Amino acid sequence: MSLPPFAEAVASVAADVEAELAALLPPVAGPQARLHRAMRYAVLGGGKRLRPFLVAATADVLDASPRSVVRAGAAIELIHGYSLVHDDLPAMDDALLRRGRPACHRAFDEATAILAGDALQPLAFEVLVRPDYEADADQRCALVLGLARAAGAGGMCGGQLLDLMAERRPLGPAEVALMQKLKTGALIRFAAEAGSILGRAAPAQAVALECYAGDLGLAFQIQDDLLDRVGDSSVTGKDGGRDRAVGKATFVELLGEAGARAKLQELRGQAMARLDIFAGRPTVLPQLFDFVIHRQS
Amino acid sequence: MSLPPFAEAVASVAADVEAELAALLPPVAGPQARLHRAMRYAVLGGGKRLRPFLVAATADVLDASPRSVVRAGAAIELIHGYSLVHDDLPAMDDALLRRGRPACHRAFDEATAILAGDALQPLAFEVLVRPDYEADADQRCALVLGLARAAGAGGMCGGQLLDLMAERRPLGPAEVALMQKLKTGALIRFAAEAGSILGRAAPAQAVALECYAGDLGLAFQIQDDLLDRVGDSSVTGKDGGRDRAVGKATFVELLGEAGARAKLQELRGQAMARLDIFAGRPTVLPQLFDFVIHRQS
Repeated sequence: MSLPPFAEAVASVAADVEAELAALLPPVAGPQARLHRAMRYAVLGGGKRLRPFLVAATADVLDASPRSVVRAGAAIELIHGYSLVHDDLPAMDDALLRRGRPACHRAFDEATAILAGDALQPLAFEVLVRPDYEADADQRCALVLGLARAAGAGGMCGGQLLDLMAERRPLGPAEVALMQKLKTGALIRFAAEAGSILGRAAPAQAVALECYAGDLGLAFQIQDDLLDRVGDSSVTGKDGGRDRAVGKATFVELLGEAGARAKLQELRGQAMARLDIFAGRPTVLPQLFDFVIHRQS
Repeated sequence: MSLPPFAEAVASVAADVEAELAALLPPVAGPQARLHRAMRYAVLGGGKRLRPFLVAATADVLDASPRSVVRAGAAIELIHGYSLVHDDLPAMDDALLRRGRPACHRAFDEATAILAGDALQPLAFEVLVRPDYEADADQRCALVLGLARAAGAGGMCGGQLLDLMAERRPLGPAEVALMQKLKTGALIRFAAEAGSILGRAAPAQAVALECYAGDLGLAFQIQDDLLDRVGDSSVTGKDGGRDRAVGKATFVELLGEAGARAKLQELRGQAMARLDIFAGRPTVLPQLFDFVIHRQS
């Protein structure tokens, strides 16, 4: 079956990243085999690898080298994978399913899941500075800095804390916006930043790409919330309806379904305007945006 | 009260590291204040900062700059602090006390403790590559690589997994040795590696320092096990006797108390011989070893 060109490009990056991750993750062997198996379970064989695709797409509009792009994308997936394992823990979202399979703490046990997440995180930084990664030392430092900031208290972890607080008391629109910006947005913005670093973007180009990624991240989250509300868990591979069940504020709750869909279109227009700076260069960034807001899983 | 010179040196490094950590950790403010407070609780105001002292002592024998040493030591303490928070979780060691205070998940809650640990980890890597850190780009990459390896599946996390397995079935002497080498040893060896990187050690010097640190780490763990067995929790600040209560294999269980003490002396002799390469240079490394094997908390 032949795919349309855009879907083929997404599948191709996903396959490259999957192979890179399979090589970077420790093999299921030795005394710590159980830990290695849990790490591989958490990261391999799932996900659309949209963040790595964004690294590739931003680097592509800047003519960067494909190999360094795949490694940076893999590092992002290691962080993303660990965050899903920890978010699913009983003390956090207490999720049963992830990517259509039992969550890591159910496939293994809670202690192993915590440790697998803990071990995935340094691996992400390790692979960005390993001598076999061809980015130069300044680029490696910039990648580590960007990923660390995206993953930390001022990024993903901070967003997850706000998300937990949302289960205890209703958040207002500004707080929901901040939560989304940090929880999902930070790592998506870093994907564009990584493309900018590897593609040696001029400052104005880097800003445009980061703004595009900010719009994309928010659109991603709104579509996620819409799928949580109306999606079919056999398609999404996650427990559905949980946000509403725990009374969690999301943009969909705040704006309503129609309002959320209008917001997606508004974000799309804004994101396209960000790309004016690349006028004339061929790029898949507009198609990526459409892919994100029309995805069903 | 005036301290003897060695104790004064330890206290001085600890004070510098404490101040550096207080400045590096996010302030208790903003929407994520709760997360920031938990991070600070986990890291500040406790511990002898022996790992940073080892960075300073190894760099000192190589004549390295004090400022870059303090930052590297602080990064290690961020990793060490996160590991204590996660090790104490109910699904892991289920500890009540740490440094004489309630463990982080009891002072806050389990979700906040998981997230605080998760957010401390990238901060450790961030502070090693931040533009205000004066180590050069190659040194920064080397520090990130070393710390990431020490913290990951082939280091601390791998050791913690073996430690958990030790509660399920008895480990043999080789497995106990590997567990200790990874769980406590990896980060202590990295402290010496960081000193070597910052001090631009010749390869033979770096090997000698890493071997010394390997002996030191094992001695540290044996003394820890002895304290767990015979120590007073009002002095150690931890729940005592737990290893024996859960039937966990340690060197003290395997060798007996007298055998463990003999092993400490054997390691001491070995460690001193490693330092022959620095003959004639003033160094506190011998005193550090004695401090570790005679500590009571």
